[in-house]
Amino acid sequence: MGGNEASGREHTTDRFADDPAFAVHEGGKLSMASTRSITSIADLALTYTPGVARVSSAIAAEPELARRFTWAPRVVAVVSDGTAVLGLGDIGPAASLPVMEGKACLFKEFAGLSAVPVVLSTTDVDTIVETVAAVAPSFGGINLEDISAPRCFEIEARLRERLDIPVMHDDQHGTAIVVLAALRNAAKVVGRELADLRVVVAGAGAAGMACTKILLGAGVGDIAVADSKGVLHAGREDLTPSKRWLVENTNKGQFAGTMTAALEGADVYLGLSGGSVPEWAIASMAKDCIVFSLANPTPEVDPEMAAKYAAVVATGRSDLPNQINNVLAFPGVFRGAIDAGATSITEEMKLAAAAAIAGVVGDGVRADYVVPSPLDRRVAEAVATAVAACAREQGITR
Amino acid sequence: MGGNEASGREHTTDRFADDPAFAVHEGGKLSMASTRSITSIADLALTYTPGVARVSSAIAAEPELARRFTWAPRVVAVVSDGTAVLGLGDIGPAASLPVMEGKACLFKEFAGLSAVPVVLSTTDVDTIVETVAAVAPSFGGINLEDISAPRCFEIEARLRERLDIPVMHDDQHGTAIVVLAALRNAAKVVGRELADLRVVVAGAGAAGMACTKILLGAGVGDIAVADSKGVLHAGREDLTPSKRWLVENTNKGQFAGTMTAALEGADVYLGLSGGSVPEWAIASMAKDCIVFSLANPTPEVDPEMAAKYAAVVATGRSDLPNQINNVLAFPGVFRGAIDAGATSITEEMKLAAAAAIAGVVGDGVRADYVVPSPLDRRVAEAVATAVAACAREQGITR
Repeated sequence: MGGNEASGREHTTDRFADDPAFAVHEGGKLSMASTRSITSIADLALTYTPGVARVSSAIAAEPELARRFTWAPRVVAVVSDGTAVLGLGDIGPAASLPVMEGKACLFKEFAGLSAVPVVLSTTDVDTIVETVAAVAPSFGGINLEDISAPRCFEIEARLRERLDIPVMHDDQHGTAIVVLAALRNAAKVVGRELADLRVVVAGAGAAGMACTKILLGAGVGDIAVADSKGVLHAGREDLTPSKRWLVENTNKGQFAGTMTAALEGADVYLGLSGGSVPEWAIASMAKDCIVFSLANPTPEVDPEMAAKYAAVVATGRSDLPNQINNVLAFPGVFRGAIDAGATSITEEMKLAAAAAIAGVVGDGVRADYVVPSPLDRRVAEAVATAVAACAREQGITR
Repeated sequence: MGGNEASGREHTTDRFADDPAFAVHEGGKLSMASTRSITSIADLALTYTPGVARVSSAIAAEPELARRFTWAPRVVAVVSDGTAVLGLGDIGPAASLPVMEGKACLFKEFAGLSAVPVVLSTTDVDTIVETVAAVAPSFGGINLEDISAPRCFEIEARLRERLDIPVMHDDQHGTAIVVLAALRNAAKVVGRELADLRVVVAGAGAAGMACTKILLGAGVGDIAVADSKGVLHAGREDLTPSKRWLVENTNKGQFAGTMTAALEGADVYLGLSGGSVPEWAIASMAKDCIVFSLANPTPEVDPEMAAKYAAVVATGRSDLPNQINNVLAFPGVFRGAIDAGATSITEEMKLAAAAAIAGVVGDGVRADYVVPSPLDRRVAEAVATAVAACAREQGITR
């Protein structure tokens, strides 16, 4: 009682005492706050019945008033079925909750947005779409999270079609936005244009798909995408619809071979696959090449080895320079979309977000500073401003 | 930006300025709070990746750890489809939101529980059941709210069957618990036993059904339940399954006639129907009768008129003595069930809650004090303690 939300159990011989991550998670990381105190009958009569009936009646007569008199338009649902959680795979909804709570903490911390974890007891695509559509009037945006490919593509596409609020699968687009921001600045460091770069993307899952799309959208010259069986090309007969799309839009020379072979002469390596890339393959890349190796905690390319050959190295790790961290994107993207009353998040809004992140680095750009720190408070605001302006320009706001 | 969750619009000529209820609802009444601040890379690495992965892995290996290391077990979803909102009827999910937010404020204020409004874009029973079951791993309890009868009966029954967390339709059972608490004390005032009372319940919807059940469970002698066509009896041919259940379990003498005719010689009138009861009908009740007239804001029986004939009068109004207000029940019921790790809310737990509410009044009981004030801070704690103890006695805790 008395407002204590922790479990209150005693843990006299606690096997989790040695790891501070568990102490941080004791009792969970979120708490709902009421913005109105109820200490008198008058408070009760305004916050609840009978006063609330007048507000509800007004919204029933004029639905747009819900934007002003309810919290929903400024709340993001962080939705997961727990099938592709971090590097842990399909661990289910309960085990995915600490990640979704963490995401909600980051929404609050960096963008001042309330966010609610919604983890699902189903992995069926139809049921997930119906469930999210059913609860959608409770929220102002849907952040899909840690849903495995290729299901994530269909779920996101169907929800974007069905709902008139922003929907974004962050594992795809958050990563893609930050990768593009980093690549823009890395290209500056080596004095190259995006249009002249040949990129090899290792990984054709959620992140690989979205990174490839946004890099194409930003004008990158040529991209070869590889899955575990090698580079995707028209001769492959084992392709899902999303991989088929990649074949039709990448690999201009229709190179057929391994990912490592494709690295010969390439300008950029983008690792989204895990595993390990041998030194000879990195050594075969073009002069002043760029290596983004995002597997976490163990990058596909050893960063020290990469530094022997690459002009710019970025990873997903917080203890190294140039950390590619989604937190640079999602808080500001949703804040901007919600502030503008946008009915969706478009490719143009994602490109605007990437440019804004790159812009925070600005003239300070260096080989070891192609993206801002994930704690840089200027980023979410810059992204939100750019995304909101883009939504208004596109005329997709309420 | 900067944490401001209000809409920030200017309302220079604001048509809502004259009603303080709208000012209280500006921007909504809820805000998600993070219980961990993230101001360093070390914070980020514990609250989010990579630290969170260790917590998620531990829960994946040992699911019961979710009770300790996530917020979900202590969060109540306040679920509505907006079909029976206050006295307003079917106004839809967006218009119902202020009520659900208010409910969440009350959960926090009186029981220290986080609660999340979940309003639904569907009114289909199957879809509602599937949706709530799908999102259930996100929550520790389900408070169903303002769902119209008879759909509410099936939705609650199916979710209770399907889920292993507390599920309660508050319009039914919250009202029933407080009515029983008030009736216990009113019987004391007039020196009667529950078993000797003949009760007339006006209204056979959600609240009428649940009040009748709990009064029978508490041992009330005889009850006649009336809908808009008169008292339910075996000769009626227009009965839904829930009304058929009432016929089989009430109206010992199988009285067939109007509700007002049934009041002749009755000890208790329980009004849950709206409308207006004529003075002659109240005058025909037994000596020292009890009148609970809960329609709000206009009770079925004028309270001043009732006082001419009844020994105890209670209403739903906050400006009169003896306010029957659900807030006396639901915060403590869920707090107790959650504290005990109960897998459901049983009839016995509801009876225990009613006894605890009545007990707070204790020896101070008087004709104008049969229930505590809705602001009495002792109530939720007393209810939680009684409900948790009952759940443990019944052996339905984790």
